[in-house]
Amino acid sequence: MIEESNLTRPPAPCIILVRPQMGENIGAAARAMLNFRLERLRIVAPRDGWPNARAADMAAGALDKMPPVEVFETLQDAAADLHYLYATTARPRDMVKPVFTPAAAVADCVRRGAEGQSTGLVFGAERAGLSNDEVALCQGIVSIPANPGFSSLNLGQAVLLLAYEHFQAVNDTPARQLDFGKSNPAPQAKLEEFLSRLEGELEANGFFRTAEQKPVMARNIRAMLTRAEMSEQEVSTFHGIVTALTRQKFG
Amino acid sequence: MIEESNLTRPPAPCIILVRPQMGENIGAAARAMLNFRLERLRIVAPRDGWPNARAADMAAGALDKMPPVEVFETLQDAAADLHYLYATTARPRDMVKPVFTPAAAVADCVRRGAEGQSTGLVFGAERAGLSNDEVALCQGIVSIPANPGFSSLNLGQAVLLLAYEHFQAVNDTPARQLDFGKSNPAPQAKLEEFLSRLEGELEANGFFRTAEQKPVMARNIRAMLTRAEMSEQEVSTFHGIVTALTRQKFG
Repeated sequence: MIEESNLTRPPAPCIILVRPQMGENIGAAARAMLNFRLERLRIVAPRDGWPNARAADMAAGALDKMPPVEVFETLQDAAADLHYLYATTARPRDMVKPVFTPAAAVADCVRRGAEGQSTGLVFGAERAGLSNDEVALCQGIVSIPANPGFSSLNLGQAVLLLAYEHFQAVNDTPARQLDFGKSNPAPQAKLEEFLSRLEGELEANGFFRTAEQKPVMARNIRAMLTRAEMSEQEVSTFHGIVTALTRQKFG
Repeated sequence: MIEESNLTRPPAPCIILVRPQMGENIGAAARAMLNFRLERLRIVAPRDGWPNARAADMAAGALDKMPPVEVFETLQDAAADLHYLYATTARPRDMVKPVFTPAAAVADCVRRGAEGQSTGLVFGAERAGLSNDEVALCQGIVSIPANPGFSSLNLGQAVLLLAYEHFQAVNDTPARQLDFGKSNPAPQAKLEEFLSRLEGELEANGFFRTAEQKPVMARNIRAMLTRAEMSEQEVSTFHGIVTALTRQKFG
């Protein structure tokens, strides 16, 4: 059964920090969350109470731009309205739980959100992490693959990586794009016009040593200049280069 | 032409920090690198010289476990032996360059590394970032997609995200795995034995109200217990639960 309040809530996961000790880490987590558009922060039993001035400093304004942080006594309370919890833990716990990579965990959050489920990513205290009982409350585990010989990430960094993955999962930035800024990609005809002119000038200046070599040499030049995916502005610039270099000859 | 020194070098990208100001950020970058097994750190014109005590503090031992940091006067010097540079920049520069996401950039690094090319991920100073001339030196751009209304990431975090993506690209951690710890997944026969026993006990205790309802009710119980992917240990535990609950009846 999905309650109505969950249907109207944004599907992005909550971040739940359990017994965080350093205000700085809470602030860094909040900043990382807003960097990547996660805005629901819940804190269980923060050591130094709440609000926390050091958290506000490190958040660089993020806490003022997010809904108010919710503070709870226990993880049970913090998670009461959520449907699926992911415990972040590096240590194996000898409990049989699905273990997700960060990318797979957030993909699972996104899918559940689309189905009307509310999810929570749960982070333990700085040194001790989550207790076994807290891990047992969570349906899944998230483990950040890292260098086994040097794997300690701080709390703010762990939140950053999950928030980053969530943003990537919900935003379809093209993997590679060519930004032509104020210019446009040159149409084939403009490129062809330039290449023909260049070959003509090279021919006139004795660049192609023999008639046999010319086709291969011309093709190699074309391959390079075509691969560069020139803008219209750049084709104009190269016309200018040819003009300047051919003028110099008669200077 | 690939020089011999590049063929024998590991294919992982260098991290190049250009004019970093705060030792803390250099240290955080080094720690993040070693967390995700990038070990070649080059620094161009660090404001406070090198070595730097604050960097050593923040690195949490990482600098001692990595090859020595290399320090250069200019980005040209730092990049002399590299084949492809990725400038990390958030601001558009009105230069026509391929713009990669972090995941696409590191995939490109890995491919180039496999072909014997050395690559560098280039990060600018804390506030100003890379100069336009420095960006112009780089073949590609990496831009970290983030909340346009709150996008400022610090230097250590930016290095962390690229190092993290590189580690994910070269390590094939299964997206989701079920960790059975000291036990093993229960074979179908053990599960079936338990389910049959449970159905028999339920039948004997009048759980199935009518003969018509029994098949559906039994199927629903099977669906849940099968979905849980029980371990052998858990099947034993559930046998114990049934034993305990049926014993209680006669207590």
